[in-house]
Amino acid sequence: MAKVKVGIIGGSGYTGSELLRLLCKHPNIEVIAVTSRKLEGKRIWECHPFLKGFYDISFVSPELKNMEGCDVVFTAVPHGEAMKYVPQLLDVGIKVVDLSADYRLKKDVYERVYGLKHEGYRDAAYGLPELHRDEIAKAELVANPGCYPTGCILAVAPLAKAGLIERIIFDSKSGITGAGIKPTEFTHYPNLHEAIVPYKVTNHRHYYEMVQELEELQCDVKVSFTPQVFPGSRGILTNAHVFLKDRIDMEEIRRMYEEFYADCYFVRIQNEARLSWVRGSNFCDIAIFPGEDRVVVSSAIDNLVKGASGQAVQNMNIMLGLDEKTGLDFPPLFP
Amino acid sequence: MAKVKVGIIGGSGYTGSELLRLLCKHPNIEVIAVTSRKLEGKRIWECHPFLKGFYDISFVSPELKNMEGCDVVFTAVPHGEAMKYVPQLLDVGIKVVDLSADYRLKKDVYERVYGLKHEGYRDAAYGLPELHRDEIAKAELVANPGCYPTGCILAVAPLAKAGLIERIIFDSKSGITGAGIKPTEFTHYPNLHEAIVPYKVTNHRHYYEMVQELEELQCDVKVSFTPQVFPGSRGILTNAHVFLKDRIDMEEIRRMYEEFYADCYFVRIQNEARLSWVRGSNFCDIAIFPGEDRVVVSSAIDNLVKGASGQAVQNMNIMLGLDEKTGLDFPPLFP
Amino acid sequence: MAKVKVGIIGGSGYTGSELLRLLCKHPNIEVIAVTSRKLEGKRIWECHPFLKGFYDISFVSPELKNMEGCDVVFTAVPHGEAMKYVPQLLDVGIKVVDLSADYRLKKDVYERVYGLKHEGYRDAAYGLPELHRDEIAKAELVANPGCYPTGCILAVAPLAKAGLIERIIFDSKSGITGAGIKPTEFTHYPNLHEAIVPYKVTNHRHYYEMVQELEELQCDVKVSFTPQVFPGSRGILTNAHVFLKDRIDMEEIRRMYEEFYADCYFVRIQNEARLSWVRGSNFCDIAIFPGEDRVVVSSAIDNLVKGASGQAVQNMNIMLGLDEKTGLDFPPLFP
Amino acid sequence: MAKVKVGIIGGSGYTGSELLRLLCKHPNIEVIAVTSRKLEGKRIWECHPFLKGFYDISFVSPELKNMEGCDVVFTAVPHGEAMKYVPQLLDVGIKVVDLSADYRLKKDVYERVYGLKHEGYRDAAYGLPELHRDEIAKAELVANPGCYPTGCILAVAPLAKAGLIERIIFDSKSGITGAGIKPTEFTHYPNLHEAIVPYKVTNHRHYYEMVQELEELQCDVKVSFTPQVFPGSRGILTNAHVFLKDRIDMEEIRRMYEEFYADCYFVRIQNEARLSWVRGSNFCDIAIFPGEDRVVVSSAIDNLVKGASGQAVQNMNIMLGLDEKTGLDFPPLFP
Repeated sequence: MAKVKVGIIGGSGYTGSELLRLLCKHPNIEVIAVTSRKLEGKRIWECHPFLKGFYDISFVSPELKNMEGCDVVFTAVPHGEAMKYVPQLLDVGIKVVDLSADYRLKKDVYERVYGLKHEGYRDAAYGLPELHRDEIAKAELVANPGCYPTGCILAVAPLAKAGLIERIIFDSKSGITGAGIKPTEFTHYPNLHEAIVPYKVTNHRHYYEMVQELEELQCDVKVSFTPQVFPGSRGILTNAHVFLKDRIDMEEIRRMYEEFYADCYFVRIQNEARLSWVRGSNFCDIAIFPGEDRVVVSSAIDNLVKGASGQAVQNMNIMLGLDEKTGLDFPPLFP
Repeated sequence: MAKVKVGIIGGSGYTGSELLRLLCKHPNIEVIAVTSRKLEGKRIWECHPFLKGFYDISFVSPELKNMEGCDVVFTAVPHGEAMKYVPQLLDVGIKVVDLSADYRLKKDVYERVYGLKHEGYRDAAYGLPELHRDEIAKAELVANPGCYPTGCILAVAPLAKAGLIERIIFDSKSGITGAGIKPTEFTHYPNLHEAIVPYKVTNHRHYYEMVQELEELQCDVKVSFTPQVFPGSRGILTNAHVFLKDRIDMEEIRRMYEEFYADCYFVRIQNEARLSWVRGSNFCDIAIFPGEDRVVVSSAIDNLVKGASGQAVQNMNIMLGLDEKTGLDFPPLFP
Repeated sequence: MAKVKVGIIGGSGYTGSELLRLLCKHPNIEVIAVTSRKLEGKRIWECHPFLKGFYDISFVSPELKNMEGCDVVFTAVPHGEAMKYVPQLLDVGIKVVDLSADYRLKKDVYERVYGLKHEGYRDAAYGLPELHRDEIAKAELVANPGCYPTGCILAVAPLAKAGLIERIIFDSKSGITGAGIKPTEFTHYPNLHEAIVPYKVTNHRHYYEMVQELEELQCDVKVSFTPQVFPGSRGILTNAHVFLKDRIDMEEIRRMYEEFYADCYFVRIQNEARLSWVRGSNFCDIAIFPGEDRVVVSSAIDNLVKGASGQAVQNMNIMLGLDEKTGLDFPPLFP
Repeated sequence: MAKVKVGIIGGSGYTGSELLRLLCKHPNIEVIAVTSRKLEGKRIWECHPFLKGFYDISFVSPELKNMEGCDVVFTAVPHGEAMKYVPQLLDVGIKVVDLSADYRLKKDVYERVYGLKHEGYRDAAYGLPELHRDEIAKAELVANPGCYPTGCILAVAPLAKAGLIERIIFDSKSGITGAGIKPTEFTHYPNLHEAIVPYKVTNHRHYYEMVQELEELQCDVKVSFTPQVFPGSRGILTNAHVFLKDRIDMEEIRRMYEEFYADCYFVRIQNEARLSWVRGSNFCDIAIFPGEDRVVVSSAIDNLVKGASGQAVQNMNIMLGLDEKTGLDFPPLFP
């Protein structure tokens, strides 16, 4: 079978390099174009030495003509940037998985939350395959979810689907790669060493994705969200403190989760959720802890894989009619 | 002025060595006896090489006669052990600060929570000076609070005092020294590297201290607590997700905190709560973040100082009629 | 083609679990037996939850009969233990890759260095494929090299082969998984946090492997070695400080390395040697830095892959006549 | 006694904030002026929140008039900057401890190594009190040593003084604060997590300080130096691999060290050199390991204390005729 031709717009950051890591061993894919404005002309491994030996091509500039011949393009650029490329790509018949925030929210919500006028709005499937597999299969454009919403939504979806939730408080801890590849005061090593740093404590924009998705499952759900970083590179560990409308048997809850995720290869119900049990992989591990008046559900993902590029490849697989596991069916790197 | 003579029962663990660190520069104190069953006869710095040059004495066995001449004794042994020493010490007129859990809870609660019969119960002041300074001043026995309760209670006490709280969820992250000096699977380096590990997710015993103290401030408060460890040695960062009974102005809340802690040298209201801003010191830094339907209050302490040995020294100072800052009035080690 | 049947003696430790990680996706292999005395009867993923979904078999006890049907067996048990299994396996015609130290040194050297009588000595190929590919191809027993020797020897082999070395000082820094899965004071988190801990500073047993191998390349080479641990899970970064007999042009040295490793897929000459550029992979990255009177060569490996289980799989591939890259041809996990 | 008035030029970086930490509890000192061009007018604790409660003054601009009334000034600015202030300060009779590199090397060496014309050269004492206490006592200007040279020189000075050294290779590992407070690609968290990064492998400028000092002790000493960073905030661990001219008894070497450092409070001979045994303190711990043909000496310092600001305070104490320990006589923060 001829390989599907893939392009990546934005190949110099962490989600770009992670796409390159995952796609180089994908059996049905050939990456033919990777863009970077500032690295144009350089070999991919000159920017990403860990990939030495895996790619021979060089970065090109992010123009439409450089995506010619692509069947699918990943846009791995900041929000506000993606909307400049996506409509053009769709218009020439290229399928798109957008890793930015530009197509995740309804237009008006997006414009309010991100403080930007949306210049190239299109309908997109929300790329959480565990909830939207069929829509994704039919979509030309998939909005890849934010890293936090992926772990948060998967942690509570079965309970929301059953309408059981009174209130959820998500307390999430992310590795530092979530802050991107550009050095800032926030990512300066001594500011993070031996630290837990809450930020945007009550006003992170990923909150709106969670609400949008969870309200679809249970219209009256109340959600709070606090993100923070922990001293590590990869991973998001979320504690979902869930207060239920009624008491419910723990065995029943566990059964609900098992059933809800029965066909979801990448969700595993475990006794604990450990970042080292999912690192480098596309798995979302979930553990459920009963309390007196609440349930705590912990979820663990690798923020760059299930929280970004791995999920993007999973979405691409579904859009192409491939098994969603293709190219992603390998174990985590433990410890 | 003659120096106060101090003994330490249990000098080989982290709280013991931290007491030794803090007391060696205390202007009014002389440490005359430190016990360790297994290190008996060894110089203190042979066990704690970081203290080389600061102590000349050797470990003695933990018998009452070895505490002769002491005015104050710190018991820094596991719960269940402390109760064997405390009554004896009190009976010969020695003041005691107990760092174990043995005297923090009411007898019946203790026996239920710790699953032990309490063989030597005595009344004790709960050693959180910001709430109980007067009782501590009069006490012969002070029960030094747990590390988690210290950071959690201080984070919300002003709101509880004002009767404003509907529900609190404490999500706390502790450094690994909280698990003690003994190697276990839990403290094995590869199990903690790049990890956030929730444990005793809905059933940690420190919960009962929080409830006991907070209910004294507001009888109808609802409390949840989840602890976890982060990859660092020292520090506890707590997010208190507080849902209030009524909307309340943020300026008002901040004013409430400033007022509540006006005479509390060791509590600082900051714009952020960072572990590196309190490390090695007895400070508890508190930051307040308004949300739409909740307030998030973050508190940062060093678990071995304000969360254990520093607070114990603060309690001793108060018991002895000294300024509570004596020997503790130095800045944190940043970064 | 029928799959090769593989057994693993010692499946509960880090090298065992790493073999399981690597072999589950190997296209020509089926793992049919994994032993653990203490986990006998348990599913593999009960001990290694990160592998949930990848293996259905359970641990068996380490007896010869449980290896029946295996074409190749990996022995991943401590030194002194491996020698009890290896001769039996060879005698029934099973090929063996031994990950312990038992077959790396000449018998008399082994007995002196490890202070043990060798009860089951056999000739083995030293499993560093970059130096011994042909011997390995013909061997029934391969002694997989130590983690430190792998990175050290590869760093200087081209210079030794050319007879240029006056003296080498290896200063190596290893991640903590090198100390094994069993909790000890050495691996206790607070003892390693923000630490660099030299140990066995002038008397580590891996030294003898280095000398044995390097003397084969250059009989008069002088070698020193100091190991230490750094706060990380995986990786060994070695600085080889090499003093040369004569001045030599840097371009010439670089050419020598390129040529020496021309057919070695898993050795990459880079401008820097970074652990994050090899993590999780079987690569050994090498960087060369010229000095006034010395050359510093840095090498980076993942201690559990190229330093242990990955190299073991590479050796197995060669023994079986497969391409040495089979099952190992994937990129590192960066960052 | 009237307090000595102290100024700090350059108070916003790590060495500046560390001076502030150490000086606020110094019994003979009052800090009256701290400069920062970009923070002029801000309270010190607004920039350094960990110091909240310890200083009331605000930053001033770095002009000579703002140093009026100072008896001693610390210049904690980059090299090339310090030389603009130092001569002016000396000319108005203010004693100076310069923490930059500007006065550490002979003028011609400085200009060659730093590639700068030295516009304000003055003679200075090299501020390593263990070697130059008498010169420092008489000096108006003290050049505070580099962080690496401090740990390296102290590790081998007794052997050099005795003329025993054939060759030394220093392999040093530094915490990231050594790279300064400004975020760069080098200090970006994901580039350092689980990493050991050699840099300026054979050409770090601190090398010239080591050579200058060690050649004064032993004219024919051969020195090599390689620095690297490890994932931690503070500390430098140096392995000095020392090849001796003749075999020498280990007991003899240990005795030599004990004697050489007999009057040096801040040098401790230990059985191991651990960063956690010196953290936050002005100690340099030294451990000696005999080898067959070499001695390995490990030294551990806190790079911001003995490697910078603590040593600067020690120098100031000596210049003022105070006990060198004043304000520095407290134990490390372990663990």
